[in-house]
Amino acid sequence: MRRCLPKISQLGAFLHEEERLQVDAAITAILALQQRDIHKMWAATFLGPMKTFLSVLESLECLLSFATSLESSKGFPLVRNINELPQSNYGREGLSHITLAGSLLHGMKEIEVWLQTFSPGSRTPIHRHSCEEVFIVLKGNGTLHLASDVHGRYPGHPKVFPIFANSTFIIPVNDVHQVWNTDNNADLQIVVIVSRPPVKVFIYEDWLMPHIAARLKYPYYWDEECFDTPVRDEL
Amino acid sequence: MRRCLPKISQLGAFLHEEERLQVDAAITAILALQQRDIHKMWAATFLGPMKTFLSVLESLECLLSFATSLESSKGFPLVRNINELPQSNYGREGLSHITLAGSLLHGMKEIEVWLQTFSPGSRTPIHRHSCEEVFIVLKGNGTLHLASDVHGRYPGHPKVFPIFANSTFIIPVNDVHQVWNTDNNADLQIVVIVSRPPVKVFIYEDWLMPHIAARLKYPYYWDEECFDTPVRDEL
Repeated sequence: MRRCLPKISQLGAFLHEEERLQVDAAITAILALQQRDIHKMWAATFLGPMKTFLSVLESLECLLSFATSLESSKGFPLVRNINELPQSNYGREGLSHITLAGSLLHGMKEIEVWLQTFSPGSRTPIHRHSCEEVFIVLKGNGTLHLASDVHGRYPGHPKVFPIFANSTFIIPVNDVHQVWNTDNNADLQIVVIVSRPPVKVFIYEDWLMPHIAARLKYPYYWDEECFDTPVRDEL
Repeated sequence: MRRCLPKISQLGAFLHEEERLQVDAAITAILALQQRDIHKMWAATFLGPMKTFLSVLESLECLLSFATSLESSKGFPLVRNINELPQSNYGREGLSHITLAGSLLHGMKEIEVWLQTFSPGSRTPIHRHSCEEVFIVLKGNGTLHLASDVHGRYPGHPKVFPIFANSTFIIPVNDVHQVWNTDNNADLQIVVIVSRPPVKVFIYEDWLMPHIAARLKYPYYWDEECFDTPVRDEL
């Protein structure tokens, strides 16, 4: 399992176009130097956006000072603009997921924080996980479906709770649940916080599926691209 | 240490005025019955908002069904309206603190979530804690002051990072930090998530105070009222 560090291209978003071209050329020049490829270094230095060797040094200084100013030992900016963070539906229709603080992305060991937006009608799978989970609803309306009987063979018919902007709720550890955006027009936007990351999720096809038949989805959707190798089931 | 359960008056916020009066009267009647005070029971039953003994039963049923519908085994509603949650400055000028999910309030064991609003110019103490911490800025502008040199005798001059609406940041475990609302007019509203609750905070008077002189503030401001007895320093 390798750590998913933000790509250099994301860091590039913080630079002006001209700076980025210079930094790219400088990196090319350094790699060429490391490979003792003087011709390539020469080309990167004098034929690209950098016209003099001095520009290489200037660009490197710019990159270095930029990296230092970010003040993060883990390869991502310390204060991050959520609008500029990578988001994706990770193959799930109607979802927009952003990992604000993650185990695989940022080295979190005890908590993970997501910002998720569900388009009208979209929902989470029916699922459970053996961790604490807190929701804060920022925008929109929907329902929480929760089956709290942990002694049955299957979840059974869930209780349904309205959720709404500026509401908060805690999912009891291992309770089977599902969140729906029931609004016809507006998005449902939520902050989700889980403990014990990365999350290990058991998915149910319906509320009558036996607990032992629920399928472990691990790594979960947004963690998949951060795993190089299959992982041992550590549950 | 006792658990801080929400007061019945908070639950009352979910009822209509008439229902609440009936429930209050029903509770009075029950308490009177328990105390074998038949006169008082009679008064609560027939002189108050309830006119017949049937109303007592109806009110109780209403209360019971209401409590059941909340579906929380811990004495608080499952889905809670943040606008109706208790908030206080806990003796700190310019602060409004709401515990959305807490160790002492809600029995959380691994994560705790706060919603905090800092009025213009107000700030946290300079402090550190041995837990993970994630911030999400919902509104306003300010600065994060962070001293990351953990090998010195004291924090030293901190680096200063602008923070702004729709930004997020992670405080490295044990790094000394402070959050300021530097805006002249607008509030700074943040979601704060910590692991290993309840939080054990070491407070510094300034950035040159030696780490070993920092004062442990435990229980922390909003946890104080939930402790009956002094607690052992478990650090």
